[in-house]
Amino acid sequence: MKKQTLLLIFAIIFMHISTYSQQALWGGQQIISPEINDDNSVTFRLFAPEVTAVQITGDFLPTEKIQTPYGEMDAPGKAELAKDEKGIWSFTTNALTPELYGYSFIVEGLTISDPNNPFLIRDVGTVTNVFIISGEQADLYKVNDIPHGTVAKRWYASSGLDMKRRLTVYTPPGYEQSTEKYPVLYLLHGAGGDEEAWMDLGRTSQIMDNLINQGKAKPMLVVMPNGNVIQDAAPGEGRDGFYKPQFMVSKQMDGTYEENFMDIVNFTENNYKVIADKEHRAIAGLSMGGYHSMHISRYYPNTFDYVGLFSAAFVPRDGVTSKVYENIDETLKSQKENGYKLYWISIGTSDFLYDANQEFKQKLDDLDMNYQYSESEGGHIWRNWRVYLSDFVPLLFK
Amino acid sequence: MKKQTLLLIFAIIFMHISTYSQQALWGGQQIISPEINDDNSVTFRLFAPEVTAVQITGDFLPTEKIQTPYGEMDAPGKAELAKDEKGIWSFTTNALTPELYGYSFIVEGLTISDPNNPFLIRDVGTVTNVFIISGEQADLYKVNDIPHGTVAKRWYASSGLDMKRRLTVYTPPGYEQSTEKYPVLYLLHGAGGDEEAWMDLGRTSQIMDNLINQGKAKPMLVVMPNGNVIQDAAPGEGRDGFYKPQFMVSKQMDGTYEENFMDIVNFTENNYKVIADKEHRAIAGLSMGGYHSMHISRYYPNTFDYVGLFSAAFVPRDGVTSKVYENIDETLKSQKENGYKLYWISIGTSDFLYDANQEFKQKLDDLDMNYQYSESEGGHIWRNWRVYLSDFVPLLFK
Repeated sequence: MKKQTLLLIFAIIFMHISTYSQQALWGGQQIISPEINDDNSVTFRLFAPEVTAVQITGDFLPTEKIQTPYGEMDAPGKAELAKDEKGIWSFTTNALTPELYGYSFIVEGLTISDPNNPFLIRDVGTVTNVFIISGEQADLYKVNDIPHGTVAKRWYASSGLDMKRRLTVYTPPGYEQSTEKYPVLYLLHGAGGDEEAWMDLGRTSQIMDNLINQGKAKPMLVVMPNGNVIQDAAPGEGRDGFYKPQFMVSKQMDGTYEENFMDIVNFTENNYKVIADKEHRAIAGLSMGGYHSMHISRYYPNTFDYVGLFSAAFVPRDGVTSKVYENIDETLKSQKENGYKLYWISIGTSDFLYDANQEFKQKLDDLDMNYQYSESEGGHIWRNWRVYLSDFVPLLFK
Repeated sequence: MKKQTLLLIFAIIFMHISTYSQQALWGGQQIISPEINDDNSVTFRLFAPEVTAVQITGDFLPTEKIQTPYGEMDAPGKAELAKDEKGIWSFTTNALTPELYGYSFIVEGLTISDPNNPFLIRDVGTVTNVFIISGEQADLYKVNDIPHGTVAKRWYASSGLDMKRRLTVYTPPGYEQSTEKYPVLYLLHGAGGDEEAWMDLGRTSQIMDNLINQGKAKPMLVVMPNGNVIQDAAPGEGRDGFYKPQFMVSKQMDGTYEENFMDIVNFTENNYKVIADKEHRAIAGLSMGGYHSMHISRYYPNTFDYVGLFSAAFVPRDGVTSKVYENIDETLKSQKENGYKLYWISIGTSDFLYDANQEFKQKLDDLDMNYQYSESEGGHIWRNWRVYLSDFVPLLFK
């Protein structure tokens, strides 16, 4: 290339890099982090010559016990990085099993993202770096060279809430050209989440593309609404602009969402090529979304043939007055009498909601309601919810 | 609430916060950063008691001269944060004019994101925190309480490139219910960008929603493809998984994209309610995307009635052999003879491509081709490209 061209290219590169330069550009530091080694160990690197200590914390490290005002709890473990003569800190894990992992660095007591890894997922107000170790279950989380569905961020008018609200809609590969009509899974997030959570933390479009391509799941729509009725959209995506997201927002579990849920169903059925009957509607959710799914499916007891409760937050609603919660047993009985195909409950054995889920099972037993129950290891974490989704979806609409 | 409920809620919150805790939870540090004050000054805060120096760098600070192997260049300025007795570092700017701003902290020489601000935009391999000062032009970048279009991430089959490829499609409010057909703007990114750049860095859906709502722009589709022909999708969104994004990828400006561009036009016209004629097609792009727009619009010289070149990278293609670049003057002449409605060139007065754009204007003058030319302050930056888009779109399809 001519010198003039090189100079132009350099100038363009410089414009970008200099804006918020992450590395000493002229030191020639071309750091790769994370680097997944052939044996599935992972090396993390950070160029920080002036710093005296760097640690890493991530869900691939053994947990540590920490003291809290509420007693001893498990917290993600930490490991020390070592510094070389060039000022590059590094740490290599043991061989890791296939999974989507998250991590952060800790520099002088400050938790930071890895400046060499732009792949970040937001959970409530925190962003965390991620990487994937391929194989087994984790292959469902990857974008493989197969047909892909479309993911749309769309707004619907909620007449009940008198608000334009945003939701995420996954339509399966071939949907646009097809003359078929499809079934729908309504997939609900937990407290702290929003209409982006199942896509970003849950890898829903990747899981759906892969399961459909493998013939394990029927092509279906997945509608991911926002369960925080005071929000029109995820933080930063709505009329409230950028603000610090909170874990619990008001009116999350007071019946308002359940009461207005048919706005979402009606919007979907009026706007997409879907089969608008009970046999072709599923509802599932994690934690608060499991709570919502339980209540919505019994409050509209002849609407959903498939219900999935993933680590559902069965929390008492004593202080809340809503007609939604007035006749829980009666509506469950109606749901039973009206019939359904699958009522699915999954929970991790170390989830703090384990006992609450056993109590709820007992209630279903007392009411003589059928359900399918599965336990996994671990607690109240996305790793489990991705697995539960992958296990639940193949059971739908068959 | 009952104690049991409180404990459950605490446990859920703890699960989330502890995973990658950004703050000393038990220290009760509820940091807000950035905080936009009433006078439009902004306060940044960082809780880092163990750290000895914190700076901020951002595009609202005066630039600094730095030395590079290619001579003196402007780099974003820095400011020092001051520490209080609790270990909270802070800095307050002067009153800022309305704009979307970006910033990072520098801790012990290490550039990091603000852990209290989850709003980040990726540019090539770097993520930067952002915030908006409302008013004037910047109000176009906000999500206002108005009708919103839909943004879809969709895959098309490029027969020419033998690849499934991802693109972003903005459809205007009301598109889905409408029986109308719409015009289309093809909007191309620069080197280092991809099908996400115009949405994330360019605020395209917000600009379109706002301009359409104000009656300043016609409702139209905006199709944002990926101009890197070796990629199927943005880094992390395609079959190559997560990897460190590079500024220049191969085959970006060798004619391949231009040669296969009609795959994108055909896909759009076969899949959306659009008017498939020259009068209802516009093409525009920034930097490399301006280069692509110029070449595509003359290589298919009877296809686009509107052409927008934003800080276009008119770089020599001496070493490249492609039939696309063989008959530049002849095809420009054909484009002129076939006629067009608008040929729009915009450039910043301190852009390093300023002279190259003047040379291109001279070429158009020599060929007696009409164009509309506008200059702005500043250089090769997204701040300008958002303005150029906002200025260009109202001129289309009228």
